[in-house]
Order: sequence, then C-alpha cells, then structure tokens
Amino acid sequence: MIKAAVIGATGYAGAELVRLLAGHPGVEITALTSRQYAGEAFADVYPALRGMVDHVCREYAADAICPGTDVVFTALPHKLPMAIVPEILEHGCRVVDLSADFRFSDAAVYEQYYQPHTSPDFCKESVYGLCEVNREKIQGARLVGNPGCYPTSVLLPLIPLLKAGVIDAGSIIADAKSGVSGAGRSPSLGTHICEVQESFKAYKVDAHRHAPEMTAVLQEAGRGGVGLCFVPHLVPMIRGMLSTIYASLNKPLSTDDVLDILAEYYTGQGFIRLYPAGKFPETRYVRGSNFCDIGVKVTEGGNRVILVSAIDNLVKGAAGQAVQNMNIMCGIDETAGLDMIPLPV
Amino acid sequence: MIKAAVIGATGYAGAELVRLLAGHPGVEITALTSRQYAGEAFADVYPALRGMVDHVCREYAADAICPGTDVVFTALPHKLPMAIVPEILEHGCRVVDLSADFRFSDAAVYEQYYQPHTSPDFCKESVYGLCEVNREKIQGARLVGNPGCYPTSVLLPLIPLLKAGVIDAGSIIADAKSGVSGAGRSPSLGTHICEVQESFKAYKVDAHRHAPEMTAVLQEAGRGGVGLCFVPHLVPMIRGMLSTIYASLNKPLSTDDVLDILAEYYTGQGFIRLYPAGKFPETRYVRGSNFCDIGVKVTEGGNRVILVSAIDNLVKGAAGQAVQNMNIMCGIDETAGLDMIPLPV
Amino acid sequence: MIKAAVIGATGYAGAELVRLLAGHPGVEITALTSRQYAGEAFADVYPALRGMVDHVCREYAADAICPGTDVVFTALPHKLPMAIVPEILEHGCRVVDLSADFRFSDAAVYEQYYQPHTSPDFCKESVYGLCEVNREKIQGARLVGNPGCYPTSVLLPLIPLLKAGVIDAGSIIADAKSGVSGAGRSPSLGTHICEVQESFKAYKVDAHRHAPEMTAVLQEAGRGGVGLCFVPHLVPMIRGMLSTIYASLNKPLSTDDVLDILAEYYTGQGFIRLYPAGKFPETRYVRGSNFCDIGVKVTEGGNRVILVSAIDNLVKGAAGQAVQNMNIMCGIDETAGLDMIPLPV
Amino acid sequence: MIKAAVIGATGYAGAELVRLLAGHPGVEITALTSRQYAGEAFADVYPALRGMVDHVCREYAADAICPGTDVVFTALPHKLPMAIVPEILEHGCRVVDLSADFRFSDAAVYEQYYQPHTSPDFCKESVYGLCEVNREKIQGARLVGNPGCYPTSVLLPLIPLLKAGVIDAGSIIADAKSGVSGAGRSPSLGTHICEVQESFKAYKVDAHRHAPEMTAVLQEAGRGGVGLCFVPHLVPMIRGMLSTIYASLNKPLSTDDVLDILAEYYTGQGFIRLYPAGKFPETRYVRGSNFCDIGVKVTEGGNRVILVSAIDNLVKGAAGQAVQNMNIMCGIDETAGLDMIPLPV
Repeated sequence: MIKAAVIGATGYAGAELVRLLAGHPGVEITALTSRQYAGEAFADVYPALRGMVDHVCREYAADAICPGTDVVFTALPHKLPMAIVPEILEHGCRVVDLSADFRFSDAAVYEQYYQPHTSPDFCKESVYGLCEVNREKIQGARLVGNPGCYPTSVLLPLIPLLKAGVIDAGSIIADAKSGVSGAGRSPSLGTHICEVQESFKAYKVDAHRHAPEMTAVLQEAGRGGVGLCFVPHLVPMIRGMLSTIYASLNKPLSTDDVLDILAEYYTGQGFIRLYPAGKFPETRYVRGSNFCDIGVKVTEGGNRVILVSAIDNLVKGAAGQAVQNMNIMCGIDETAGLDMIPLPV
Repeated sequence: MIKAAVIGATGYAGAELVRLLAGHPGVEITALTSRQYAGEAFADVYPALRGMVDHVCREYAADAICPGTDVVFTALPHKLPMAIVPEILEHGCRVVDLSADFRFSDAAVYEQYYQPHTSPDFCKESVYGLCEVNREKIQGARLVGNPGCYPTSVLLPLIPLLKAGVIDAGSIIADAKSGVSGAGRSPSLGTHICEVQESFKAYKVDAHRHAPEMTAVLQEAGRGGVGLCFVPHLVPMIRGMLSTIYASLNKPLSTDDVLDILAEYYTGQGFIRLYPAGKFPETRYVRGSNFCDIGVKVTEGGNRVILVSAIDNLVKGAAGQAVQNMNIMCGIDETAGLDMIPLPV
Repeated sequence: MIKAAVIGATGYAGAELVRLLAGHPGVEITALTSRQYAGEAFADVYPALRGMVDHVCREYAADAICPGTDVVFTALPHKLPMAIVPEILEHGCRVVDLSADFRFSDAAVYEQYYQPHTSPDFCKESVYGLCEVNREKIQGARLVGNPGCYPTSVLLPLIPLLKAGVIDAGSIIADAKSGVSGAGRSPSLGTHICEVQESFKAYKVDAHRHAPEMTAVLQEAGRGGVGLCFVPHLVPMIRGMLSTIYASLNKPLSTDDVLDILAEYYTGQGFIRLYPAGKFPETRYVRGSNFCDIGVKVTEGGNRVILVSAIDNLVKGAAGQAVQNMNIMCGIDETAGLDMIPLPV
Repeated sequence: MIKAAVIGATGYAGAELVRLLAGHPGVEITALTSRQYAGEAFADVYPALRGMVDHVCREYAADAICPGTDVVFTALPHKLPMAIVPEILEHGCRVVDLSADFRFSDAAVYEQYYQPHTSPDFCKESVYGLCEVNREKIQGARLVGNPGCYPTSVLLPLIPLLKAGVIDAGSIIADAKSGVSGAGRSPSLGTHICEVQESFKAYKVDAHRHAPEMTAVLQEAGRGGVGLCFVPHLVPMIRGMLSTIYASLNKPLSTDDVLDILAEYYTGQGFIRLYPAGKFPETRYVRGSNFCDIGVKVTEGGNRVILVSAIDNLVKGAAGQAVQNMNIMCGIDETAGLDMIPLPV
C-alpha cells in the first residue's frame, strides 16, 4: 500500500485527487490538509463524498504529515509549493507538485513568467510529469512537476509529430477551450455563473503563462525553432478542455499518415485514444476520466494538419495525471486507480 | 421628461434599471452611482451597453445627485437605503427603494427579520409597490418599497383568490425556484458556476426573509389567519423565477372558475398574462420582460388549487416593477419603457 | 460471476446500466441489444466508454440472448417489456424491468394510466423493486418492476413516516424537479437545448403517471387514505432529481424526531444518507451515485414536515437501483458495483 | 410604413425576425407563414410574444402574401427559397433571403457545395448582404442574399485588413465557436440538451459549407490567393458566436495599427464596436443585439494578428442583418428597429 497525503485537498484539483486516491486499490490516504477548512471533515466540504472519505482536514506541517507517508501531492497555488517541497523531500517522501513551481528545469524561465524562485536547485532535479512522453525519467524521480492542463492537451498530440519531424515547429497555433473549474474554487467575478453562463470568451490572448511551459517542452522535443501562438477560451461548463491545434506540414501527408505516427508513438498507452479519420472527440467523452482523446485532419492539399484533443482538465489535466505519475514513480501498474468508467451522459 | 437617478447602478438590479431607463421614452438619466466603480464608465462595467449608455459612475452624494432629479431609485443592499432615503426625500425627490428597508409598514416586523431600523417613521409612509394591487396608493406616493422577487411571484396569483375568499389562508404552500442572479453580483461560493451549474437545491428552507414580507401582505389582503410555508430553490440559470403554489379551496371550484376570478381582478392589466386551462408558463417566456405569467389547475375533486407563476426576477421581480412604480407615481403611461419585445429563444 | 444482458442498451437508462455492469466486479455482460444501433459497437454510440466496453449491439431475440444469461435487464419504453418478459422468464432468466409494465401488482390500475396489459398474471408475481423497503420480497423474486425515478425520490423519505403513523396520509404534496435525461434520448422539442436551457417549467401538473404508482405504494405502506398532489418540474441540467415534499404531522414533532424515525428505519442501509437538521442535499452531491440523500425540516409549531430528497435519476432512479435489485435477487453484496466515488464537482 | 412578410416564421431565424419586425417603428407585418404551424397563432408557438404579436401562421402562397407587401423575408432551409423567390420578385416585392441560395453570385460554386440551382440567373442579380461592406450595392437591390452567421463573424474583422493589403490572404485560420441555436429548431441528437450541455466539440472540421462562402467574398475583397482554414465548434449555450481568427501580417504592425485600419474602415458604422488594445469581446455582450464586437492583438514581433469577433448568431448573424438589409434597401435609417438595449446579464 502506498501511503499518500494531499496538501491543499479542498481546491478542485485537490478534491479530485482525493476522489481518485480514495478509489485507488493500492493507496491509503494518510492526511488531507486545508488551511481554509482545517478541523472540518472533508466530506462536509464535499458532501458528494459523504460515507466514502472519513478524513478531517488539517493544517499542513511537515513533521506531522511526512512520517509514514510515501507520496505527497502538493495541490496549491504556485509560489506556495516551492517553500515546502524541499522539507517534504528531506523527510524522504516523493512529491508530485501540481503547481507551476517545478515544471521548468530552468528556474530563470520560471522567474520570467511567475516570480523569484526560492528553490531553483530543485527545478533541475524535477521531472516534467507528462507521463506518456517522460515515463522513463519519471520512474526514477522523487520530484515531479505535474504539467498544466493546457500544456497536457496541446503537447500530447504535437510531440509525436514534432519528434517525427513532419511539422514546421514555427507554425503552431493552439486555440484551446476550457471549462471553468480550471479557474479554481476561489470565487471571483470571472467564475460567477451570471458572468460566464450562456457566454463564450477568449482570455489572456497570446499572453497565458502556460505558453512558455509548452514552448520549453516543445523546444526539447523537436529541434528548436518553436513558434507557438496560444489563445485560451472559456466554455460555460464545469469540466473539460478541447484544444484545436494547427500546424504546417513539412511535406504533404494524409490524415492516415498522421494518425499512423501518433498510433506508433502511443502504442500500448491506454490513456491515449485516437479517433479514426473523420471522427473527433468531444469533451464529454473524457469527463471524469484520465483519457486524452485525439482526432486528426489534414487539410486538402496536405499542407496543414489540424489536431483536436480532449481531456478532463481536472483529471488528465491535473489530478489524474498526478496519480499516474505516482503509479510510475512507485513502480506499480500505471493505470491503477484510473480505470473508473465515465458516465455515458 | 422624468429625470431619474440610480443609486447602486452596477449591481444586477441596478444595471437592469439602467437598461430599462435608457430605453424609456419619457426618462432622462441624471446620475448613476457605484461605490465600487466610481470614476469608471458604466459601459466598461457592462460592455453590453457600450454605445448606448454614456454615463460615468459616481459616488453617491445627495447634494450632487438630487437637485434636478425627480425620481431616485435606490438599488442597494438592505440597511443602506434607510440611511439615505430621508435626505433624498427632503430634496423633494420621489424614491423607489428596491431593498427590503421600506417594504414593511410596521418597522417592528422589519426589525424582527433584518436589523434595527433607523427611519421607522418612513416605513409608515412608504407604499408597498405591488403595482397591480396597490396602484391607487402608489399614485400619490413619494416613497415606494419595491416588492421582493419571491413575494411578487407568489402574491400576484394569490391575492385575487384570497380577496375573493375562495382559498384557505392557513393552507398556503409556496415552492419557489429562482435563477442565480437573485443572489446578486458579489462573488461567493454560492454563485460559483462549478458549485451551482448542473445542480439543483433548496435553501433557507422555511427560513427565508421574504416569507414575513409575503405574510404581512397576505394578512392585509385577506381576513388574516395566514399560514404560509415557503421554500425557495436555486435553478442553474441566470434569470427567471417560477413559483408553484398550493392552497386548499374553501369550496369546490373548477380550474376555469379560478381563472375567471384572476381574469376579473386583472382586467386591463397588461403585465399579467393568464394561461388557459391545461397550459402553464415557463420562465423563458418572460425573460427580459415585465410580465407575470400565471397558469392554474384545480386538482380532481376541486379541493386544492395549484398556481404556477413565472416572472423575470430582475424585471417584474425588481427593476421592471420599479420602473412601473415610477410610471404610476409620475402619472405617465404605466407601461412606458416596459414594452420591449422579449427574445423568442 | 453473474451473466447479465441489457435489452435496450443505448437509451440513457440502458447505457447507464452498461456503465455500472461493466464496472461491477461480479458481473459479466453477455449481450447488449439495440434496435436502432444493431450491428454497431456500443462504444461508437457512447464514445466515453471506448476501450472499456467491447460489445457490439444486437437485435433482441430471446433464443440468442437468454441461454447462458442469468439476469436480463429490460430498459425499454413501457408496453414493449410486457411482450417479451414472459419468454425471458421461461428461459429461466431473472428479469429486472425498468419500465412501468411490472410496477403495479394490479394490472387494472396499470391499464387505467397506460394501456391494456397483455401479461397481467406476471404483474401479480412481480415485486416492486424499491430496495430499501421491499428487500425481503426482492430476495426471492424472479421478476422485479424497477421503480420510477420520481417515485423513488418521493417514496424513500415518506414511507418510514407513513409506517410510523406520524404524517397525515391525505395531506401529501410532492413538488419534484428533474434533469432532462429523464425524458430519454429520443430527440424532441422538449429536449432541444434551446427550448430548455436557461428556463424552468412545471409540466404534467397533477397529471403525471408516476402519481398513481406512488399512491399505490403509499396506500400499502400506510393505512390507506392517501391523498397525493404531485407536480413535476424540469431543471435545465442533465442528471439529478430533487423532491420537496410537504405533509401535515399528526402530532407535533421536532426535526430531530423525524430524523430519528428515518435513521431507525434506514439503519445499516448505506445508500440512504440523512442530513443533520439545518442541512439539505443538492443534486450534485449524488450525481453518478446510487445515493438517496434526505434532509428534513419541521416548520415552526411542529405541524408540518418538509422533506427534501436528492437522487441521480439515472442511477438510484433507474439503473443503479436495477443493479441493486439484481444484487439482492442473486444474493450477493447489495452494494457490489455501486460503490464508485462520485465527482466532487 | 414598410409592409413586410416572413416566410418560415417559426424557425429560430424566422422568429427572431418577427421579434425585430414587431418592434420596428417603420414596419407593419402583413403575413407570417409556417408549414408546420399553419392555422396556429404565432404567440402560441412562441409564448414569449403573447400580447405582442397577434398574427396567425399561414401556409405560403405568393398570390395571397405578396400583394400589399413590400419586403419578403425567406427564412427557410436552403433549396426551398430558390423555388419561390422568382415568383415573389415578379409580384414586385423585394426579397431578403436568409438561406444560402442567393449568397453566391456564381451558381456553379453554390452547386459544388449544395445542390443544383434552379434559378441561377437570380444568383447574378442577388447582392451579398454584408451591410457594412456592400451597402451601396444593397441600396439598389431587389434581392439580397443574407450572409451566413459564420461568414459574418469572420468577414467583418478580416475584410478591412485584406483590402488594406496588410495580411497574407493565404494564411488565414478561423477557429469559430457557435451556440446551438445555429443548428435550428428541428430536434435532433445534436441539439438534445443531454448530448451538448457540459460539453464542447469541433464539428465539420475543415469541411463546413460556410467556408466556400467566405472564400468567395474574401477573394473579391482582396487580390485573390485566399487560403482559408475554417473549423467550427459548438458551445453549450443558446445564442452567440465568437470567432478567433489568425493571419500572418505582410509587414510588422502594432495592435493599434490594426485597430486604426479597422476604425477607419468602419467609421460611422454603429453596429461595429472596436475594443481597445488589451480588451476582447464576450458573446454575452452582443446577445440580442445587432452588434459585431471586435478585439485585436498582434503577437510579439508583429508578424501575426489575432482577431476576436463576437456576434449574436440569430441577430447580426441572421435576422438582425436581414432587417438592416431591408432598411438599406428601403432607404430608411439603417438602425431602425435595431437599437434595442441588450440585457446587462
């Protein structure tokens, strides 16, 4: 049994972690922390889990939480994890951090888009937890920076093509659409139902911090020269993320050629579901699951490829991939605890 | 031209007032106030109205706002209006207050459910602005307490039957359902789209402050003996309110008998739309309009009547009725500025 | 391993059965039928289940489906099951029918609200599958009529009080609200998103066929004299059902008194979750799960009780209860396959 | 007074026409036709308009409808208008056709994407009714092909830039998102709330018939060489369309440079609202109105421009633009009947 703790258990990613860990056959939850709800039963904060999760939320304290715990998930806003991850590691725990703090191997890049980094050495050690791409590095890791939701949905369809050298790295446009849970649980005008329901908008147009995260990974995957134009949008729904990605092909290919490249790269990787030519995923097909569904179309003339990927932003885009990372780090079946069957509607 | 000002113009009821007043052929807006957005263009807060409303939001100050203004709408959280309404009246303005502060003629009842009242004398003077019921009193009023949204939707179908003596005043159950805009614009967990979308709940079960407001009016309309059980619910939509009301009949009646009583009471009142037997309103039919749509069914045996009423909580339940009150107070056509045609879908 | 088949697998209740049976540790699916999609992979109709359900939909034929099958679920519109259930039973299969065809022990009552019944003898044999109430009868049954969604949500909170003799059977009002999936998958104007989104309505006011189903069960549970007024409403959401139920108390009780009666009746029944005084369920708390959550309030004076129950109409209101019935009929753990952890948001 | 008739008044675009014409100060409605609802009051089909529109739906018959009518709106599925428009024109009426039948001046292009055209001569005569671009041609026209919703939202921001020669016509990508009302009122699985709510999808990826419509207009506006990649998506909302458009700049420009080009082109055109640099429209800002709101961002380095446009697909994308076309054709104030103030929320 893996002993696992969740720091920041009452945010949306944290709560989703609790759902997945509570149903994981090889995990025992040792502690859930929450500054806001310390002292309250987790199931009082999320009544859906009444009778299924008995833990009471606690304040974080490394001494109290780390001993007897194998894996700690830090599901906190960025800036907070960098302050506590070092001490957790010192206690001998492995860490999967869901914030941006350990996603950049080069702390200087992080500092350009976020703020000064107080644990830059750990950035170098940290492995970027894009499971299907970095599995081998993750296996030996004690610290994983869990990818952002947008990067996950954009990188998974792109990387095999970039590695195969068939797309022009300088031509990538990612037009992404997310449900509102990606904005977190803290109330704001931007999450007020009356301000987002029955509406659709672009936001942080070509100015979202997930863009440098993607660029960094794409640079490494290809041969550099990455030019990425990224525009996120907000969909009036709770969960789900769909990215429509456009790239010029270096040479004419058919839709099936592209699908073949993806199929080969993802052979045996159960969380990637490729759609046959002419079919495309919808976000409801992946809701609540760890799948990344991908559809492909090469435009007439064979010069441009359109990739459509769908994930659940809270699962494959956050908590699900974090659990997958834990499974890989701990050497157990990668799909353990992630094989729940999604709702048909 | 009536010169009108809105105090608290950037809340949802206030903004709806701005929409209606800006389109009102007999009104000129003199001032919009907003503490939060003072100094900002109203149309920057509500970009939907760009090019249609040019006002800049200001801080409230009676001296600056009242001179040259005929009617002041106070669209503030309760407790605030009682502090400023007296000085506005002193300036010779008429006032329509959209809070609860001047809905109770007896300040003691108000104090039981809200807080100490600092202007109790004005409670006696204030007229309860349920237009179709209190029109004559409103005509001479300088201060109107605009009814709550729930009371409007419950009282309009009930009062004619109570006055006709056909229902048992002690048997009334009102099961009401509201869109989320009724909760106002201030962000909270209760208005976070992820906490209310795809869900339905009851709240303040038999404990909502609109119940004593209704009871007070019903007591006056009938011969006392009112027993009201009121349960509000939250619908995952922005606008709209539907109340399903149950009452025992004092003697067996048919559905058409009840419709006749309503039709007679509301003869010539264009904002009340009665549905023929077998048909019932949906909230979308009244969205954006000042209508109160009412459907009726008497249960088999003729012992109980079911009333279904639908209003737009921000229009007939707030800003629309406030404008209607202004029209009546100022002696102009009661429907002026309220005849916009609603969206078919 | 129980061998189970689903007749009508591509409707919403059928698909939900497939989800639950595919995840059930003690079940093997032997066949899925669908007239409309015969020959197509189930996972092509419901892509959410790609990689998790491999079955191809077939036409129904008793000879082909029954041999080697232990339990057959008929998830068809009423009128169809009565024609095929007899032959399925003859093959020695047990049957859980999700339609109304076998919910009435008296076929004459059925015929009054539906149509002529061609297998009236089986009505007498059939057990009404309200698990928490009829468990003992279900244990020996070979044919179970799975309760309707509205009856499940109304009966579970009421029956213990009726049996305890504390409520006036003649005074019951059930104001129920359902998500749209209850209307089934066949497209109609009534399920068109543009006709139901951002709106709320009552429908079949005091004229829904689930009312006689409830009345029949309540009559049996109490000492007769049942008067039920039932008004269903449509909520702009996919899943979920909340019923607000009003009844007069025969003698003054406190909220805790009522909760105690429910707690005693449902001791050890894990799918019933009672809320402490002052708290009430929301439909999102039960989405995707087999729970029936219940909150209670006795009004001031102690004369009337308000019960609020929440279920997922497709799970406890249909497929989940059907699986629970199968578990009971087959003598395995009643919660098997029904312990999936719901999404926190 | 312009006498106007709507053929196909009960579809969503037709009903929206009725809303706008009923509120138009210079229009009198002479007839509403509907095959499905012939003989029924329009307000029974759309109860929102009860008390505001008194017409009864009729069967279409040129002889009965054209005499005494100045302008006929044909709001029918494509293929139907081409059969009746010639006879309507013969009666001396002007026609605004909302289908695709008269949008292509070259019938051969139409036939490539739709079906054989039975009135190809009228295609040459017909004017493409993109008001802000083709105003002068529309003034003299007796037949206008009202633009599609997607083309309106894509062409309005692009044409000024193409005409100014600042973008590479071969590099255009339009990633568009629409509410479901664009799919029309006929029920289908694709409009079933349970299949689209809480989900997001791409559809007709690089295969939508609005693409050749856009290409034809863009070819004419620029100097040819147009390469357009168009991917539409479905948003779980009723109304609204947002297009995110990407194009390479021929020479480095700033965001303000691009805004200046748009501002100059649209000087004095009240339905185009440009957003200052850093701000972008949301679809709710244009709901129910005839506005096309446009935001702009040039990416770092100045090589690519991102255009974000928002319209109400049923207004500027259909009925509103049709009324605007009528106003221009008839020589009255272009904004007449289109100045209704939208809901703030």
